[in-house]
Amino acid sequence: MSFLFTPTPASVPPPNAGLTLSQPKGLPVHFQPLNPLQFILRAAEIYPDKLALLHPDVPYPVSYSFSVWCQRIQNLAYALIKAGIKPGDRVAVIAPNSPLIADAHHGVLAAQAVLCLVNTRLKPSEVAYILEHSGSSIVLVDHEYTHLLPSNLKTPVVVSNDTGRQGDPYEQFLSDGRAFSQERGWNGLEYHADENSPALLCYTSGTTGRPKGVVTTLRGSYLAGVANAYESRIHLESTYLWILPMFHAGGWTFPYANTFAFATQLTLRTVNYPLIWKHFLNSAVTHYCGAPTVQIGIVNDPAARPLTRPISAIIAGAAPTASLIGSLEEKGIQPIHVYGLTETYGPFTRNYAQASWATLSPQERSKLMARQGHSFATAQDVRVVYPPKDDSDTVLVDVPRDGKTVGEIVTRGNIVMKEYFRDPEATAKAFRGGSFNTGDLAVIHTDGAIAVVDRSKDIIISGGENASSLAIEQELASHPDVLEVSVVARNHVKWGERPHAFVILKSHAASGKWRGRVDVFGEELKTYAKSRLPGFACPEWVQVVQELPKTSTGKILKSELRRIVNRETAKL
Amino acid sequence: MSFLFTPTPASVPPPNAGLTLSQPKGLPVHFQPLNPLQFILRAAEIYPDKLALLHPDVPYPVSYSFSVWCQRIQNLAYALIKAGIKPGDRVAVIAPNSPLIADAHHGVLAAQAVLCLVNTRLKPSEVAYILEHSGSSIVLVDHEYTHLLPSNLKTPVVVSNDTGRQGDPYEQFLSDGRAFSQERGWNGLEYHADENSPALLCYTSGTTGRPKGVVTTLRGSYLAGVANAYESRIHLESTYLWILPMFHAGGWTFPYANTFAFATQLTLRTVNYPLIWKHFLNSAVTHYCGAPTVQIGIVNDPAARPLTRPISAIIAGAAPTASLIGSLEEKGIQPIHVYGLTETYGPFTRNYAQASWATLSPQERSKLMARQGHSFATAQDVRVVYPPKDDSDTVLVDVPRDGKTVGEIVTRGNIVMKEYFRDPEATAKAFRGGSFNTGDLAVIHTDGAIAVVDRSKDIIISGGENASSLAIEQELASHPDVLEVSVVARNHVKWGERPHAFVILKSHAASGKWRGRVDVFGEELKTYAKSRLPGFACPEWVQVVQELPKTSTGKILKSELRRIVNRETAKL
Repeated sequence: MSFLFTPTPASVPPPNAGLTLSQPKGLPVHFQPLNPLQFILRAAEIYPDKLALLHPDVPYPVSYSFSVWCQRIQNLAYALIKAGIKPGDRVAVIAPNSPLIADAHHGVLAAQAVLCLVNTRLKPSEVAYILEHSGSSIVLVDHEYTHLLPSNLKTPVVVSNDTGRQGDPYEQFLSDGRAFSQERGWNGLEYHADENSPALLCYTSGTTGRPKGVVTTLRGSYLAGVANAYESRIHLESTYLWILPMFHAGGWTFPYANTFAFATQLTLRTVNYPLIWKHFLNSAVTHYCGAPTVQIGIVNDPAARPLTRPISAIIAGAAPTASLIGSLEEKGIQPIHVYGLTETYGPFTRNYAQASWATLSPQERSKLMARQGHSFATAQDVRVVYPPKDDSDTVLVDVPRDGKTVGEIVTRGNIVMKEYFRDPEATAKAFRGGSFNTGDLAVIHTDGAIAVVDRSKDIIISGGENASSLAIEQELASHPDVLEVSVVARNHVKWGERPHAFVILKSHAASGKWRGRVDVFGEELKTYAKSRLPGFACPEWVQVVQELPKTSTGKILKSELRRIVNRETAKL
Repeated sequence: MSFLFTPTPASVPPPNAGLTLSQPKGLPVHFQPLNPLQFILRAAEIYPDKLALLHPDVPYPVSYSFSVWCQRIQNLAYALIKAGIKPGDRVAVIAPNSPLIADAHHGVLAAQAVLCLVNTRLKPSEVAYILEHSGSSIVLVDHEYTHLLPSNLKTPVVVSNDTGRQGDPYEQFLSDGRAFSQERGWNGLEYHADENSPALLCYTSGTTGRPKGVVTTLRGSYLAGVANAYESRIHLESTYLWILPMFHAGGWTFPYANTFAFATQLTLRTVNYPLIWKHFLNSAVTHYCGAPTVQIGIVNDPAARPLTRPISAIIAGAAPTASLIGSLEEKGIQPIHVYGLTETYGPFTRNYAQASWATLSPQERSKLMARQGHSFATAQDVRVVYPPKDDSDTVLVDVPRDGKTVGEIVTRGNIVMKEYFRDPEATAKAFRGGSFNTGDLAVIHTDGAIAVVDRSKDIIISGGENASSLAIEQELASHPDVLEVSVVARNHVKWGERPHAFVILKSHAASGKWRGRVDVFGEELKTYAKSRLPGFACPEWVQVVQELPKTSTGKILKSELRRIVNRETAKL
């Protein structure tokens, strides 16, 4: 990876630049507030010349060493302060994976402000709501997404053309910040005295109702970042490829895991499979994160081939199917299956492999690997509890560890959000019984591993039985011609509800044997299901589609699928 | 490693044992006090059947899975509570590396008490002082060290015969604890509400004056443990060999690093080089810690040979010489050079290798590797400051980063002790200027790496020049016949002081070419020094000895060497 690039003059640190913020007064000698900003400062101190950030596949590629990147982060902090940002103010960022959003994860904290991340896939009306609700005092926006801004927006806006060159308004903003600093350096900024202060504000992509603003803390971000570096074994020699959008739950704290580890980060603006493979094969990539739908795209891309060096794939968002795990391993991609939500900084459980699994068949092993597992390195207890009897029920009672009784996953501790921003009612509801109630249904096995059964609203009540849409999908995905599958409840006169399966075929199967014969495929898949699932869980309908509707964060929109099938039902 | 062993009935957990302590009331959902006790509980939850602790080379070898070990730890907590131990009380432990002291690192915290570790190499009078000063309410003592106990001791004593079998008084103590618990399990114990509470109390082996009691916290122990696991890359598949005594600065928090990592720990009662090599070669050892003197013993043992799997050696206590680094690497032992004190939980700096070092000669690279380096993963700033002008001088001024100006190393943050126990005066003195003043003299290089020059009292003022005894030792150690060397100041009529070198020869050299000719060797070493050191730093005297006087923690007693040489001088 080589290209000619010189950072702007304002990005170059002065000789003998200090890397310490001015300390809050009166701290005990043995106590320093936890703050993930420490990681980038320490990286710049120990490995100033190491490649920190590479943004290659754009008209104006850039690369920054830790030392230069750290100076740019400092400039951003001063620029925000110059713009009137005070401690606790919200700074909105609307950007794909790029230096802007990478800078902001650190620079906004350095100004003691709160980073409000906006999903670039939202509609303008949703963006307007978030900017309004968060009370953001300034917006940093990538040039491709300025159309998302409300026309009547009154807060200042800084546009990045993603060039890293002089003449770019974002670069001007940083240069002005440097000038404003009067070379006071890091020591002219103050270290946050309270580790429980807000760090990020990430809005959940609620499929119903208004999005809710998840507030994380400095302490939680520090501990989650360290845990992700440890669990994924990210180190000095690692290169992390940004496929997961950084705006998605703050990139699961990997912006901090990578600086903690002194790893190199490589940013991609879009999920582009040939480009991903180019970097897998040529850029010494060692780690990336992605939901199963992205992983499916990766292993099925024509460029996919066995790697000569292993890559670790951190998978979350849904359980990987046996078929996906097999495909990843064939390529030399080692799956790390984690589970979490925006409210838990990303991962708060992980599937921990057991030595005894080594002797199992790939199919059996994959089933065990698909479980969500146990509490993550710095997470606290993970429990599965009976659903509340009524609105006033605040007692959490654990379901038995029988692998059968379905309950709701709850957790608490340092990597649980502080609150929903300006929404005490939603916070109180989510924190029922002194734990965060995830809304995910699961069983807990005898070994203490949890296995998500479904989102509570995705359960299919078929002939009085509870059928897990996820369990049905797991089985259907093992059919050799299925690329991706989603199952929802469809109204049924006799059984109440019955499963309806939406299937994307693998390209060879779609253009080959099932071409013009998708009805026959549907019957075959139903027969396949009957050999593997109880009758009430077998799909009554199979529909082959070209694509599936997804949320802005890449999750399949089951609410939309339900609308489609039940509209059809209503017509019958 | 296989032998017949069945844990006592009281060590076997009941079916469906819970692994959660009862939570303090009123904690926010997003906050859990940091406590390294969490690590063993999580290990027992996720890997109950994995080998946790192995104690093989004793008349009654034992091995415990995480599940069984965790039950024993719970039993210990209940046994202490039954014995009247209240939160904050001190529990003294006098034991070599063995299950007793490993249990105590967790069980004492589970009783919310403070673990007071007593060095087994102390004299009875020193032990009496520590038991008295710490106000320990109970003493757990290994059978080999009961003679260290004062005859008039009034506190209860529990003796371990290190058998792990019924009939052993320590096992009876644990069984009684189990009975006392009435099977309330972990939930019958309370989780500590304050993470800044004391965890360990470790007395420094002061060469002058009374030992001082270093108080660590739960928060610091958690963060230092995580940092050590991350920095040394200890994981599920690792086996840690206990060569460093666990009583030495709480084993540098490796008791917690290992449980955090789910690693297997192997305890050795004594530093026995043939035994160490037996385990290096046969027990899948991956990590160990040790001071350079121990490392010298390891690489020079007749059993030493190149390893087929690499082992990481964490080295602290003094800088490894180029010669030692070379010998370790030849065997396949990868040195990780860290620096710290009891007051900093062990490591708070580390020598971080730079890519550019790969092209240097082994000699040049070793010199860079001998520097103490930069701040550790969860440590805060490390500074080198001018010594105080007088007793009232509390302003810390950094020395320039020139690799020349000698100052004192100071640090602060989460892995600095809370205080010296019951010694506000010594605490205030050590915390001059709001940082912990280490008493170690160092320079700081242009790249921010610190390099220890000497303990302030070990500097040799030779003809008005400051000669670092460490720097002289580094050079003399590179002589092929030198096994170990220590240099101290000796009074000199003309120059004030001059270096006096004590040397242990390698066995082949001692029995071979220098047999009966140590005077000739002395002259050769002086000539060797002259080619490498400035005149004022060359040893005026070379004395070949069989062994060097060491402190109870294995550090060379320079005060004793100074006494020897200056007594001789006085006689002249």
